[in-house]
Formats: sequence, structure tokens, C-alpha cells
Amino acid sequence: MKFIKATQYNVEFVEKNYQVLTSLLASKNYSSVYLLVDSNTEENCLPIFLQHSGLSIPLEVISIEAGEENKHLDTCMGVWESLSELGADRKSLLINLGGGVVTDLGGFVASTFKRGIDFINIPTTLLSMVDASVGGKTGVDLGPLKNQIGVINTPQMVIVDPHYLETLPGEEYRSGYAEMLKHGLIRDEEYWKILADFSAINTSDIEKHIFHSVGIKNEVVTEDPYENGLRKILNYGHTLGHAIESYFLTEKDKTTLLHGEAIAIGMILEAYLSTKLCGLDQGQCEEIKSTFNSIYPPVDINKQDIKDILALLIFDKKNSHGKVKFVLLEAIGKPVTDIIVEENLLWEAFDYYAN
Amino acid sequence: MKFIKATQYNVEFVEKNYQVLTSLLASKNYSSVYLLVDSNTEENCLPIFLQHSGLSIPLEVISIEAGEENKHLDTCMGVWESLSELGADRKSLLINLGGGVVTDLGGFVASTFKRGIDFINIPTTLLSMVDASVGGKTGVDLGPLKNQIGVINTPQMVIVDPHYLETLPGEEYRSGYAEMLKHGLIRDEEYWKILADFSAINTSDIEKHIFHSVGIKNEVVTEDPYENGLRKILNYGHTLGHAIESYFLTEKDKTTLLHGEAIAIGMILEAYLSTKLCGLDQGQCEEIKSTFNSIYPPVDINKQDIKDILALLIFDKKNSHGKVKFVLLEAIGKPVTDIIVEENLLWEAFDYYAN
Repeated sequence: MKFIKATQYNVEFVEKNYQVLTSLLASKNYSSVYLLVDSNTEENCLPIFLQHSGLSIPLEVISIEAGEENKHLDTCMGVWESLSELGADRKSLLINLGGGVVTDLGGFVASTFKRGIDFINIPTTLLSMVDASVGGKTGVDLGPLKNQIGVINTPQMVIVDPHYLETLPGEEYRSGYAEMLKHGLIRDEEYWKILADFSAINTSDIEKHIFHSVGIKNEVVTEDPYENGLRKILNYGHTLGHAIESYFLTEKDKTTLLHGEAIAIGMILEAYLSTKLCGLDQGQCEEIKSTFNSIYPPVDINKQDIKDILALLIFDKKNSHGKVKFVLLEAIGKPVTDIIVEENLLWEAFDYYAN
Repeated sequence: MKFIKATQYNVEFVEKNYQVLTSLLASKNYSSVYLLVDSNTEENCLPIFLQHSGLSIPLEVISIEAGEENKHLDTCMGVWESLSELGADRKSLLINLGGGVVTDLGGFVASTFKRGIDFINIPTTLLSMVDASVGGKTGVDLGPLKNQIGVINTPQMVIVDPHYLETLPGEEYRSGYAEMLKHGLIRDEEYWKILADFSAINTSDIEKHIFHSVGIKNEVVTEDPYENGLRKILNYGHTLGHAIESYFLTEKDKTTLLHGEAIAIGMILEAYLSTKLCGLDQGQCEEIKSTFNSIYPPVDINKQDIKDILALLIFDKKNSHGKVKFVLLEAIGKPVTDIIVEENLLWEAFDYYAN
């Protein structure tokens, strides 16, 4: 049994036997246990959970609609009301079984229900395994603005069971993979080189890589839980990526992009900015662009789109004092933070992406 | 200048000069400052704030409707959206100027906006000065259930300026006074005896008593911030008081009770339970009843009301494992926690109150 020790809790890597969960439940004497799922994980992951966890205690299942567009306060309201009606109290436990929407929203619901009850996250997507499993970020969107409402709070435990990945569509798998590539870009060039050859990644190796990615993120987050310094490097590709994701989510004529698809574009754009402002080698920039282009389908972004995306930028959580600050790269594996970028360079970056 | 050192911040008692606030703002370099008021405090307290604080920085004022019935998530949504539209970022500050609704709701809004921005509370009612100024409880109601959604988080500073009390209607003054009487009952018999003679309390003495009350609450909260033990004693009168308050708030035919009016009834009811279960002296129980009855108008509670109030009890945040637990008194100044009460005794207590 492998685990990574995060601040105040462990990320447990399990194999068809959730002994760690059984032990935790035995030691905590919860008054009741609730399982939050969405319509997808209820169908595809709940049966695996019931089989692998071997839990014999009574569980109430609370289900929400699947999809990023449901990651808002109305959905929270429904879950809070369900918890209330089902008699949840301050000694209850909420287990969140799902992707980032379920773990982010469920973590927020638990952190604010009766001023905070315990919760456990069981990420079922590659993205949530490598990204949401450490860091303690919880939250929901406010209109088109991603993760505007939330708190930093830690679960009692995170359980990573790679069997859930078998239920995952290919594009969701690639979406999570983008975060793993980012871990290489900001911290570990050798890891980047291994992952860059996507077609050579054997599914049986993926658990090893998940473990490595969680380890990288955990190192960063442990050192700087409240994002005052080092933790900012995790935002590489996200400053523009989030704005692009928000724009495609709310624009009616556009197909919604998955998180990984959006930040893949963000990482290409920000690699270009890095060559202009931080001395990133032109060849490394091309390598970043061609790697992402080999995995993620190209996206058409026209002039009006760019204008609207840039307008969304100023609402990004990471901005303060009205300035948009970027994490850029001096080289692969060597990030720099708090770089201010002029608007004309942003337009150039979109041009670089398109051509 | 007097102050009480709470966990991570000070409660500052000021006199027409908010030097402590000016110094804090100078040291923190906030990107922008927002002032949350309600329709009452905007009219009555904002002018005092502007005059006494002497602030020369630009302030954006965000106003919400006054009243406990607006302490819910829709109101939060409006404030979050205003903050977003006005360009608030992670380095912004929210100053909450008002009674418990404004400080509880504003504290929650700040604690969850972009995963937490700084806030300062300036309580303008006696209740919020003595009750909400320490303890770090923030939150809003969920339907009829009080404070179901919230977090524990501390402000950067609390400023107590007794001049705001001059704007307060008499019944609001008495409402806060009930919490001060509670502080005597759970911790300091001598203080109880001084306060019990309401008509003898000179308004010029009130600041001294506020200071004493904040000191008592702070001692209790500092020792047990997460309400695992000692802090429970602050719930004396509140287990039934909250249920009564909720019931009168949501029942259309009833006049809403102020918090202090509701817990005054709760403290009489729970004094009766204390004589039955914890050996509280009959004479002290009568003294408690006659003291509250001399300050607070009697309230008619019929059989159907009692039934509905008892049904609301099980939703109280402090309950776990489906049991309703009370804080009762062995004597004035000597509380005991976690007492389970049979339903028939609860009916008897209401009978004692009515007769």
C-alpha cells in the first residue's frame, strides 16, 4: 500500500481493498455517512466503490447532475438541503466520489455545512486524481467565473483507486493528462520528456505516473498552502487557460472545452510569452507546442473570441491590484512567477497558437 | 485604548478615533476596500463611521436589506457578485459595519470569496458587540434553520465603538443584553447580580460591561475554538432559544422575536430543566425567571407552537447522533454540558414558563 503524506491527511493508493477507509471509519465514530455522486459516477463508479470498499455500514447516496455547468451554488443548496433532510449532523461524514466537480463542490458543501463536517475525496477521473487530490482547494463557480466561491480545507483522506479510470472516456483521460504534463513543465524536465511521448504511455504505467504527479503537487502545496509564493507555479497555463475555459463554457455557439484541453492551449500561449519575457529557448517552446498539438485537437479562436477571453482575464482569482500576473518558464522545469504581460504580447501569443 | 486579545486578532475598544484601523490599513497594502452595510446601518451608522474613522482612502459601499430574514445565500450571492463587478481581488478587504446579520454574513462572504479575503467587523448593536465580536463564527441560515451554512474564520480586527449604540432602538438594546445576562449565568454570578437589576444600569457604564462580556466569551472561545468542550456552555438558553427564534421567524401568523427575546425564553426553560436534572436551586431558578420577565415581554406559546418548536430542535447544529443535548446549570455560574432531556420534561418547562 503506497501513500503520500499531505498536510494533515494522506493520499492513499489502494488496490481493490479500502482497508484504510474501514480503519478510519472505525476510529471516528461518525453519526452517519453520506456519499455524494453525480449522474455519471452513480452509474459507473458507485458499483466499483461498493465492491472495492467492502463497507458494511449504512450509506445515504446524494446525487447531483454531472457537468461543469452544475458546479454552482444552486447545486450546493440542493446538497445542503438533502443533508439536512436526511438528518446529517456535525459528526456526519461526506464521501465525495467523482471528478473535480464532485470533489470541489462536495468539499465546499462539507466545509460549510454546520460550519464544517469531515469529508473524504475519492477522485474517479485522471484530472481529479492528479490535481484535486492535494491542495485543499474547494469551491464552485460564480456565473462564468470559475471557482470564485470556496475555501481552503483538507479532507480526512483521499483514496486513489486507478480502477475508476477504466470507466473514463478517452478525452477525459487526455484532460487529466494535461495537468501531468504541466507537472513536468514546472518541476521535472525528465518527467516531461517521458510523458511527452503520449502514445508510448502504457496504461499499466499510469498509476506510477499518477503517484509521481501527486508527489510533485504535494511538495509544492505543502511548502505554500495559501498560495503566497511557490504554489503559484501550479497556475502555469491556467491564467489564460481558465479564461479560455470560462469563455467556451458560457458562449452559446461554442463547444465546451474540457479543463485539460483549455489549459493545453494556455500552456502553449504561455510558452510563447515565456520566450518573449523570460528567455525560454525557442526550441523548447516549439517542443511544448508540438507535444500539446499531438494530443489535443486544435481549437479555432477568432479575434472576437480573443477580445472576450482577455476581458475575462481580469476576473481571475490570482490577480490583485488590477494587474494580471503570469507564471512563465525560463526553461522546462524552471518557472518564474508574477510576470506582468502587455496586451499586445497576448495577441501575439494567440497568433502563435493559431499558426 | 483598551483591547482584548482574541485568537489571531484584537477586539479594539475605540473612542472617536480609529487609529488602530488606519494603522492596519497602512501596514496591509490592500488593493481595494469594501464596506458592507445594511439599509439601517447605511442610514444610521455609516455617517458615524465616516466621521470617527477619519479614513481618507476610497471605499466602495455595498448595501443589503436589513433583517434576519435576509441572512441567506441569495443575499450572499448579491454581495459576491457586487465584489466581482467592483473588481475585488484576493488582496481586497471587506469591512462589515452592522449587527449580527451583517457581520455573520459578511464574514462568510469574505471567507469564501476567491477562497478567502481579509475582513474586519465593526459591530453596531449591543448583541453583535458582545456576541459576534469573538468566536470566529460566520454564516447564514438555510431556510428556517439558523446558521446552518458557514465557516469558522477570524477577522483581522474587531472594532467596538459604543457610539453606535446611540442609534439602537430599545428592544435591540435589550436583545443584546440577554447575551450579557447569559455570560453572568454561565461564568460569573457576581456579574449576573449586577446586570439583573436592569433599571439600575447606567448607559455610561455599558462600555465597561461590554468589555467584561467580551472578556468572558473570549476566555471560553480561546480555550475551545471548535466547540469540542468548554465552548458549548455559550449555548445555554440557545438550544430551545434557537428553535423558538426559528419558529417565530418562519411562522406567518407570529411576530418575529429578536434573538435576545428568544434566548431569554430559552434561558427560563433551561433553568427549569436544570432544577430537574442538575440540582439547580429552586430559588435561583425563580430569580432567573423573574429577572428575564422583568426585562422581556411575555410571549404566548400554545400547544401547537410547542410541538413545532420541538420538531425544529433536532435540526440544531449542536446535535449529533440524533440526540438533543443541553447545557444546563448546577448553579448560577456553574454550567454542565451534554445533558439529554426527555420530551415530557420539555413540555413541563414550557408550562413553567407560561405560569
